[in-house]
Amino acid sequence: MTTSGQANRREPMLLREVIGDVLRQARTGQGRTLREVSDGARVSLGYLSEVERGRKEPSSELLGAICGALEVPLSQVLADAAEQMLHTERAAADRTVANIDVATKVVIPQHLAMAVA
Amino acid sequence: MTTSGQANRREPMLLREVIGDVLRQARTGQGRTLREVSDGARVSLGYLSEVERGRKEPSSELLGAICGALEVPLSQVLADAAEQMLHTERAAADRTVANIDVATKVVIPQHLAMAVA
Repeated sequence: MTTSGQANRREPMLLREVIGDVLRQARTGQGRTLREVSDGARVSLGYLSEVERGRKEPSSELLGAICGALEVPLSQVLADAAEQMLHTERAAADRTVANIDVATKVVIPQHLAMAVA
Repeated sequence: MTTSGQANRREPMLLREVIGDVLRQARTGQGRTLREVSDGARVSLGYLSEVERGRKEPSSELLGAICGALEVPLSQVLADAAEQMLHTERAAADRTVANIDVATKVVIPQHLAMAVA
């Protein structure tokens, strides 16, 4: 295993982290700056930056305003977040299987490991 | 139009309303009580009830705990929320088209109205 203390930050597991990633991807995909989007959403630049980094929990109203400024429907943000979260959950499940193998010295039959993956 | 003052509550537009609906559907679909799930998630029954009704904004940590108690992956909750939000957005778009027609007496060409719908 190559996990380190900060490994769990690389793959977001909390809703605000996933939402932040999706919002940042939407903004940078449009080639827009934090300033442009924060002005459009009427939030401070620093606040939007914190939301994108998954450090602030935006209220539903503010999330709606940010989606409006990005001209991305909230349904699309949620669909993207669902996809990213699914990817993260699968990666975490893979790590759990690997950890059981290493830590407890239990031999996991090939067909079972494949079923979990 | 048959809209009334409370019409906008029927179709949730805010994230916390959609998430609340999805969580309640998951719980009732399992035939479980508020008490059972709130105990499992270590939140108060009243708090969970408020979350389900879209009145409280759960933190990402609490949302994770509620999903854990329901044994539903967050990715599934988000996918369900995305689907419900898409439905709501389409219904709102339909209402907007209808409102423009009635309120401003503008004739909307058939092919345009169909494109928006």
